[in-house]
Amino acid sequence: MAAVDPAGHVTSPAGFRAGAAFAGVKTYGDGKLDLAILVSDYPCMTAAVYTRSRLHAASIDINRAKLAVRPARGVVVNAGVANASTGERGLRDGYELARLAAGHAGIPAEEMLVCSTGVIGHFLPMEKLGGAMPSIVLHRDGGPEFARAIMTTDTRPKSGAVRFGPYTIGGSCKGSGMIHPNMATMLAFLTTDAPVEGVFLQQVFAKAVDDSFNLVSVDGDTSPSDTALLFANGAAGGDPIRLGHPLAWEFEAALRDLCVYLAKEIARDGEGATRLIEFTVTGAATVEDARKLVRLLSTSYLLKSAVHGADPNWGRIAAVVGRSGVDLNEEAVTIDLCGTRVFERARPTAFDADALSAAMRASEVEIRVDLGVGSAAATGWGCDLSADYVAINADYHT
Amino acid sequence: MAAVDPAGHVTSPAGFRAGAAFAGVKTYGDGKLDLAILVSDYPCMTAAVYTRSRLHAASIDINRAKLAVRPARGVVVNAGVANASTGERGLRDGYELARLAAGHAGIPAEEMLVCSTGVIGHFLPMEKLGGAMPSIVLHRDGGPEFARAIMTTDTRPKSGAVRFGPYTIGGSCKGSGMIHPNMATMLAFLTTDAPVEGVFLQQVFAKAVDDSFNLVSVDGDTSPSDTALLFANGAAGGDPIRLGHPLAWEFEAALRDLCVYLAKEIARDGEGATRLIEFTVTGAATVEDARKLVRLLSTSYLLKSAVHGADPNWGRIAAVVGRSGVDLNEEAVTIDLCGTRVFERARPTAFDADALSAAMRASEVEIRVDLGVGSAAATGWGCDLSADYVAINADYHT
Repeated sequence: MAAVDPAGHVTSPAGFRAGAAFAGVKTYGDGKLDLAILVSDYPCMTAAVYTRSRLHAASIDINRAKLAVRPARGVVVNAGVANASTGERGLRDGYELARLAAGHAGIPAEEMLVCSTGVIGHFLPMEKLGGAMPSIVLHRDGGPEFARAIMTTDTRPKSGAVRFGPYTIGGSCKGSGMIHPNMATMLAFLTTDAPVEGVFLQQVFAKAVDDSFNLVSVDGDTSPSDTALLFANGAAGGDPIRLGHPLAWEFEAALRDLCVYLAKEIARDGEGATRLIEFTVTGAATVEDARKLVRLLSTSYLLKSAVHGADPNWGRIAAVVGRSGVDLNEEAVTIDLCGTRVFERARPTAFDADALSAAMRASEVEIRVDLGVGSAAATGWGCDLSADYVAINADYHT
Repeated sequence: MAAVDPAGHVTSPAGFRAGAAFAGVKTYGDGKLDLAILVSDYPCMTAAVYTRSRLHAASIDINRAKLAVRPARGVVVNAGVANASTGERGLRDGYELARLAAGHAGIPAEEMLVCSTGVIGHFLPMEKLGGAMPSIVLHRDGGPEFARAIMTTDTRPKSGAVRFGPYTIGGSCKGSGMIHPNMATMLAFLTTDAPVEGVFLQQVFAKAVDDSFNLVSVDGDTSPSDTALLFANGAAGGDPIRLGHPLAWEFEAALRDLCVYLAKEIARDGEGATRLIEFTVTGAATVEDARKLVRLLSTSYLLKSAVHGADPNWGRIAAVVGRSGVDLNEEAVTIDLCGTRVFERARPTAFDADALSAAMRASEVEIRVDLGVGSAAATGWGCDLSADYVAINADYHT
């Protein structure tokens, strides 16, 4: 695992600037910033991964259309209004927001992407956003304020950076549940000063997102706006990284490690969460089976409740394994909870429930399931389910 | 819809007797009954539907094996210990419990089925169960005590009966979450005094279960012990009902209506639930799509939380529709909440949020989604998510 520097951020790599302002759209939370721009001083290669939701936000259509024509080198993000379910006017507003940001940053409008997060079904308050845009100061140390401005129900900003060879990758993300009205869409923005060949960049990024953000679950609800972007500007020089380049694997590993770090930050900050849960499935017949079981475990109401109560309730894990439909050998299935074997040979072990409960009160709880039929594996992350989650999502009114 | 008599139960049809006793296994809840027998005075045709979990309880194996050889005419049920994940000894104990019950009821051991519900990974306390068995009095009015004895975390017994032609169908079920240690497995027992041909009985029952119990969700967790049994003893006389019999369709409709009634009782009594939610999906391309969306809607943390808070949060419904992967026409999708259109033409309508919130405080909340692409439909049931659910499942220790 490459060492992730938690003090790093999107402007840690050379040649990126960022800044933020308060447009008065996000009316909750601390640190009143709700409009941010990230821009590269140089042309970029750009990779993007989007939500698979059929009912997606305007920003998804806009970014897809732009990136189909040429790479982008910047993104404007607003928090408070998601510009989703807003039809034609939503598309026009999104293009206009990008145009305003591009003008302010001094780049072509076609090279500025746009992301919006917040309430669904409301139009972007264009006057407020346009009014605040000129006050954004883009600077080399703007990463931290960018990270704060993109937050919605997040309780803290989520950033990090990692080094490989002579290069840096930085990133920030937001998200702590798929929330309406505070639509806590998952957004992730990554930057690198490495030169990377475009097709390779997209392949490596898609894989990194699949192994990180796509294996995180707070409540199993995908948002219509989920977006992950990666800009590679080559500012640190050198030959473009592609398959066969001496640093290709280091780049892939470093990018994956940073994405995993950021994904875990999302799970840790899940709405109402008190602890992070790491789910590892091994011995699966296929990677698809392993990933499917990770996702089912991370979204089980009963298992999330048990972890919240520090209850070493292996039966809830076994029940999810049983209903998952994945290929397994019942006699060979093993379940480990915080490093303690609790189930094997189709039977619970004689573990010390009090000691295990105490271990489960740590800030990170590890659950491992071996299916005993193959060699495929997957790891994902989630969080416990607390009464606070219900309060956040039931007692707040639209 | 056939009129379901909520005062009816498993001994409402002619020729069935039931009774219960307290063996001291179920140490929680009111009405200390935890061992019950249901038996027919005459040979039966028997239909059964089981959990699809790969890690199932001993009772599933036992009942499958018995019914593969001959129809059964009785079942013994114990609550408090599920006899799941108990290996060979679990199988021996289950067979022995059935043998003891059959002896007490005066029928061949092969014709007595067995169901167990409660904690996983514990052996059946055979001495206690055997000791209590002789005190069970089997009588024609035993249905209500049978219904109470099979409860675990249920807050109330769930029974009903329905008439068709000269015949009666009765039933009881239990379940309010898939809970360990109080493994609230879904168990359903139905009886009828109609004569029904065996293969037809199984076909009709499987379909009725699919349209009722299989479309109910409290928390999405399938238990290893879920079982539904239907005994048809023909005590009311007449020609066996089969395809083409004048009452075939009436039987099918009546059975389905009773199963739906009982399934809704389960959702209504979901752990921590304060209201029943009915989900109807129409305009789907296929029944599979409609059923899939019903299940996704009924298990969404965000939607269940919104209903708990009486929040007319159509965005959470739209988000589930979007991520469901079902075929849809975005421009034609409509969403109705408590009879009010809240979303159409890819946009929210101008509904009165306060009036709708007030309507959502009723004991039943109706959510309808039309996908605008076909004519397939499905209806299912769930409940809201309350802080009490978390308390029940986190604060109780194994």
